[in-house]
Amino acid sequence: MTVPPLDEFGRIRAWTEGRQNAGFLQQAGVVEGIGDDAAVLSVRSGQEWLVAVDTMVEQVHFLNETMRESDVGYKALAANVSDIAAMGGVPKFALVSASVPPSWNADRMKRLYDGLYECAGLYNVAVVGGDTTSAPQDLVVSVTLIGTVEQGRAILRSGAKPGQSVFVTGPTGLSAAGLHGLMRRSPLTEAAGEKSRIASIPARLVQAHRRPAPSVRAGRLLLEKGWATSLNDISDGLASEAWELAEASGVKLLLKEKLLPMSGELASYARSEGLRPLELALFGGEDYVLIGTVDKEHEAAMRETFRKEGLPLFIIGDVEQGKPAVELELADTRKRRPVEKKGYNHFAEGTM
Amino acid sequence: MTVPPLDEFGRIRAWTEGRQNAGFLQQAGVVEGIGDDAAVLSVRSGQEWLVAVDTMVEQVHFLNETMRESDVGYKALAANVSDIAAMGGVPKFALVSASVPPSWNADRMKRLYDGLYECAGLYNVAVVGGDTTSAPQDLVVSVTLIGTVEQGRAILRSGAKPGQSVFVTGPTGLSAAGLHGLMRRSPLTEAAGEKSRIASIPARLVQAHRRPAPSVRAGRLLLEKGWATSLNDISDGLASEAWELAEASGVKLLLKEKLLPMSGELASYARSEGLRPLELALFGGEDYVLIGTVDKEHEAAMRETFRKEGLPLFIIGDVEQGKPAVELELADTRKRRPVEKKGYNHFAEGTM
Repeated sequence: MTVPPLDEFGRIRAWTEGRQNAGFLQQAGVVEGIGDDAAVLSVRSGQEWLVAVDTMVEQVHFLNETMRESDVGYKALAANVSDIAAMGGVPKFALVSASVPPSWNADRMKRLYDGLYECAGLYNVAVVGGDTTSAPQDLVVSVTLIGTVEQGRAILRSGAKPGQSVFVTGPTGLSAAGLHGLMRRSPLTEAAGEKSRIASIPARLVQAHRRPAPSVRAGRLLLEKGWATSLNDISDGLASEAWELAEASGVKLLLKEKLLPMSGELASYARSEGLRPLELALFGGEDYVLIGTVDKEHEAAMRETFRKEGLPLFIIGDVEQGKPAVELELADTRKRRPVEKKGYNHFAEGTM
Repeated sequence: MTVPPLDEFGRIRAWTEGRQNAGFLQQAGVVEGIGDDAAVLSVRSGQEWLVAVDTMVEQVHFLNETMRESDVGYKALAANVSDIAAMGGVPKFALVSASVPPSWNADRMKRLYDGLYECAGLYNVAVVGGDTTSAPQDLVVSVTLIGTVEQGRAILRSGAKPGQSVFVTGPTGLSAAGLHGLMRRSPLTEAAGEKSRIASIPARLVQAHRRPAPSVRAGRLLLEKGWATSLNDISDGLASEAWELAEASGVKLLLKEKLLPMSGELASYARSEGLRPLELALFGGEDYVLIGTVDKEHEAAMRETFRKEGLPLFIIGDVEQGKPAVELELADTRKRRPVEKKGYNHFAEGTM
């Protein structure tokens, strides 16, 4: 009730004006962008539209100690880009709603938008509108992303069938390891009197956490070639997203430990910190790579094309008949163990 | 950091499942609704898309003392419906992002969705997705609404020309008066030791504040007949929105006090509370009626059509040449005074 009003238009203008040029916006299909009651967007026939929304809340999804302002803006959009990638679509238009507490001044918000526009530039996304309000205490950034997909071609989670293979478009667990490192060296930890033992965190892990690179190109290839029978992006962890595929498709997924991609940085960081790399890879979230399924007869062609394109691809297991479930075949004993359906719990102890 | 994780799918399902039937969703163009990475929406050719987002923050846009849970849900969607109406469009698809603090339990959220779906039903809006996260303290609800409009026909704010008339599609100030009444009789006021003097607040004022009725039908008429040269919805108060039209169109708007619609309930409530009705009508926000401009030659036909349709319409002034500004011609002296560009400041003292 004592929150000062924002001059909404003035601020939005200061954060957004001149960021994307008229030619780009026009070519993207923006008839009217920021500044009227609603954005007006043009539609090519034969396309369907994909719409996703993703929200980041200060203290819940990020801490100022682990994410710079520009990282928050970048990642708020990247999380949505990943959702569109997971449908095989092309990201196109973004709307940004920011609820801004007094602790986020105009400079900080400008940096947040710097990061958001950086991501928009990488993925050719036109920022077409939004809403800015005050907030009493914590920043909330909600991004709506609109994409397009060829009519009837969106790749759902529900098409996995027994006999197919399971793949991922990148290693998992890096983001969670990066967050772990950032938390340990944060002033919070140091203030608590615990001297950080970490001299430096591998840059790849930090980058994976702050600047994820959604698999848009991979998603388009999978759609164009008709390879993916189901697809999902890994926001809440490999285990959790595998469970979603299994439940939506009515199948069991068998993941094989020896096939899971494991980055050297992750393995050595985990060792030095007494963490289990496998737990990070299964239950660490926010990697924003894709998990999907493919007919075995297409595996070779898919591998070859991804290799040529310089895109990572890992076959990690099989689809089996059975009640929806996810199991892991251990590397040493080849015994199976059930994989818990647990998701990614931001900052919670005991997740790993 | 101590916020418990939500079982996102479980909760969203509990709040949304069974609310809208498959036939309605299919007819609305929903190919895939809630439950995958993104909603898939089908597009009719010859249409452009309108996209707006609007956010409500607890303590900033509403208080639990003045808005029931269902009102919050209803109004979060209605504010967006009004943005689509202000373009002359048809509201179609909504996505809801809710950041939920511990004080909003599942029952309260269910009631919020009750109100949201009530509004969706009234305006034939298909709810197609969203995002649910935890929040440390205050509820944030952000609704993205997608509408359609005939290609090249969206009504912008920038088309007002000197010699045209200014109109509104309903009286203004009612919502602000309703809020004033609700604040005075709220436990907050009583707890502060100030015994409320209000036996009852006129139901129309309370309704205007809690359950605004956006002018979708009026907007469609204005577009179909080609009458509105500019259009804007009144979310931040008549004065503020008139200023937006004036600035976007590069004209001066002259509003005439004697032409401003003034409801009897508003006038008598204001008198009993020592408030000035004119100030409420000019600076009270959230009425969600439309303000626009029309060629004088179309005025008679427009009045007649609106009368036949049972829709309110008031010509309230003229568009003049000059530097962007808004002026008021006083009823008694016919003198002009400038109208301040001030917007609506939720709950702030001194706004009225």
